[in-house]
Amino acid sequence: MTLAISTRVNAERFWSTIEQSAEIGKGREGGLSRLALTDADKEMRDLFVSWCRDAGLSVSIDRAGSIFGRRAGQDNDLPPIVLGSHLDTQVNGGRFDGIVGVLGALEVVRTLNDLGHVTRRPIEIVNWTNEEGSRFSPPMVASGCFAGAYDLDWVHARPADDGPTFGDELKRIDYLGDAPVGGRPLDSYFELHVEQGPILDAEKVQVGVVTHGYPSFGALVEYRGETAHTGPWPMEKRRNALLAAARLLVAVDDIGWDFAGSGGKATAARLIAWPNKPGILSDWAQAVCDVRHNDEEAAEVMAERLRRAVHEAAAKTGCQAEILDTWSWGGRIFDESLIKLVRQTAGHLGYSHRDLPSQAGHDAYFMARICPTTMIFTPCRDGITHNNRELAAQDETVPGVNVLLHSVVARADR
Amino acid sequence: MTLAISTRVNAERFWSTIEQSAEIGKGREGGLSRLALTDADKEMRDLFVSWCRDAGLSVSIDRAGSIFGRRAGQDNDLPPIVLGSHLDTQVNGGRFDGIVGVLGALEVVRTLNDLGHVTRRPIEIVNWTNEEGSRFSPPMVASGCFAGAYDLDWVHARPADDGPTFGDELKRIDYLGDAPVGGRPLDSYFELHVEQGPILDAEKVQVGVVTHGYPSFGALVEYRGETAHTGPWPMEKRRNALLAAARLLVAVDDIGWDFAGSGGKATAARLIAWPNKPGILSDWAQAVCDVRHNDEEAAEVMAERLRRAVHEAAAKTGCQAEILDTWSWGGRIFDESLIKLVRQTAGHLGYSHRDLPSQAGHDAYFMARICPTTMIFTPCRDGITHNNRELAAQDETVPGVNVLLHSVVARADR
Repeated sequence: MTLAISTRVNAERFWSTIEQSAEIGKGREGGLSRLALTDADKEMRDLFVSWCRDAGLSVSIDRAGSIFGRRAGQDNDLPPIVLGSHLDTQVNGGRFDGIVGVLGALEVVRTLNDLGHVTRRPIEIVNWTNEEGSRFSPPMVASGCFAGAYDLDWVHARPADDGPTFGDELKRIDYLGDAPVGGRPLDSYFELHVEQGPILDAEKVQVGVVTHGYPSFGALVEYRGETAHTGPWPMEKRRNALLAAARLLVAVDDIGWDFAGSGGKATAARLIAWPNKPGILSDWAQAVCDVRHNDEEAAEVMAERLRRAVHEAAAKTGCQAEILDTWSWGGRIFDESLIKLVRQTAGHLGYSHRDLPSQAGHDAYFMARICPTTMIFTPCRDGITHNNRELAAQDETVPGVNVLLHSVVARADR
Repeated sequence: MTLAISTRVNAERFWSTIEQSAEIGKGREGGLSRLALTDADKEMRDLFVSWCRDAGLSVSIDRAGSIFGRRAGQDNDLPPIVLGSHLDTQVNGGRFDGIVGVLGALEVVRTLNDLGHVTRRPIEIVNWTNEEGSRFSPPMVASGCFAGAYDLDWVHARPADDGPTFGDELKRIDYLGDAPVGGRPLDSYFELHVEQGPILDAEKVQVGVVTHGYPSFGALVEYRGETAHTGPWPMEKRRNALLAAARLLVAVDDIGWDFAGSGGKATAARLIAWPNKPGILSDWAQAVCDVRHNDEEAAEVMAERLRRAVHEAAAKTGCQAEILDTWSWGGRIFDESLIKLVRQTAGHLGYSHRDLPSQAGHDAYFMARICPTTMIFTPCRDGITHNNRELAAQDETVPGVNVLLHSVVARADR
């Protein structure tokens, strides 16, 4: 049984799930603030699980809290095709982001149910825990654990900015499942996501075929100095950790400007210090920063300059620097045959499409380590994202879901 | 009745009060973390009030929570001589700081009681609320209110970093008194304090005669930008408020280095931002910074450069800047006749002494607006302060208390 090329998902039904999601964990006007493992995240998860069960999926939760809904195929000994993304958001997040990927995957399943189409291979839809990393660092920690990059105990021990650990919060919201995290063969992984960049919207292109990720490098840096009075203490004796962190962030921004002409970016993302009060120098600070560039060599130069800036800021301020953590992602990690499948499918369905890189990090980056993986992007107005003004219309988003449907079925039925 | 030149305070009794204070609100090893209007501050206040009552003082609390202990004179229609400082500390504070000034004033009273010496004018000892400003901004807010610089309702509305207002916390710890704040004539104000600088200790000089304050200028600056994704968002569209604040702090530090050769200082004191998370640009940040220089003209140039840096950081980052508050202090504000009295008294008592400026802000700066005022400094090891390693020995500190005793009595009995 093949899928007629004229088959389309139920656009209204899909969009109604986006709108129901937009009611849970509201942030600033029009936006969401649905941080991982909060009460709002639990409410969204519960709704998603009920939708999965209503669609006849068998639901399992793994020990990192990721939710899988499995739809049996004709040959259930074959590894499944997995498709999904994440339902958590930034603190000033949008309504679309990874949500279109999870609820788009759900709509694919519902459409197959309507058609009575049983794929040869089973398919699984997934909601990964804590993609954003806005409450627990690092981001993409559950897919990273699934792919073997992070140890599960370490993941459970990650502290929230507001106190409790990842493991405590999983238990509290009743999403510490019993399924093992990863360690099983997958046929492939597809992730639909809003572009989070301005290209598709600017060019009025309907579907983005993601060819690779911007090579990116980030670091969490700690500085240690000494408290002293802000008044009498001589400049040459000062060891102000807050200042060291500020100097690093400014240096990293300068790196970004040096490469801005060729599309490079650098980010001063986070700075915390102690005591961080008027009248006293801070003896402790942490900074989070990153650099990225589409050209691998340029990205490496930027990363090298970032590493150097860490120690220059320490030397300039008399502080001690320690790079507590680094991360890098991106590159030509996606599967050539899947990229080609998505590109051809978009063409067959009559959608305008273009190749483009992903500039952000995604769960797909970790999944690419363990199975053939690709991504599909939908447009996002003016490229605005991680902002309550993130906007995507139904008719701009549905083409991507249809490409996901046909690509996944082609892969599952091969 | 005159005070014999050989009269000395009871050094052991004085030091035992310093040691008892050092047990209340302990911070890191050897230090104190006794922030204004916390439970620890209340415990210290209660002890101080009981000491005042035991010394026969009539205690009054004003509506800003400052504690006054009055010792009657022979002519109680004359305005009182006031002496004191503050018992609150920074979060990583020392055991001496302003504490020697309050407990030194108490020891002056106890010594006069021992002698049965009734001064012509009444004298009052004082503990000012929230000198440090480490929990409520600005610092020296109660003496500022006493001197008419701040409105009482505004003072009560100051929010703590941890939530409640100054007024709420005064009520909670039962120190919202009924005495009016200021508005009454004072004969003069004496403040004993550790130097918070290395000069006396380095030169092994026993007593510092404070001639003036370093002209200083500080600002609280707010930046507003816009959240966006740290990945795809182009450099030229970014409006990262965290980065604007970091750029300001680095620019201010650069100003300090430009004037370091002539003793100038600049401080990057505080930076807070929102959301301040990996993965998202911050749309709000605040920074606190200051500059100071012994030379009035140089200080003015530094302040002007700081003001310019506020707007340069905004322009560079596409953010909006607003200077929410500024403060300036220092200069030749102390009373020439009181300075001379302190200098002569130190000489008569046989102590080594030297003139020097205060580089920090003090309650005395506000009191100088409403009555003749001066300060006496005691040595502080290596100039280390606002640090748990702040250190002063009994025999290094007591000479300053004796100078306070004789200076105050000379003034009160004239």
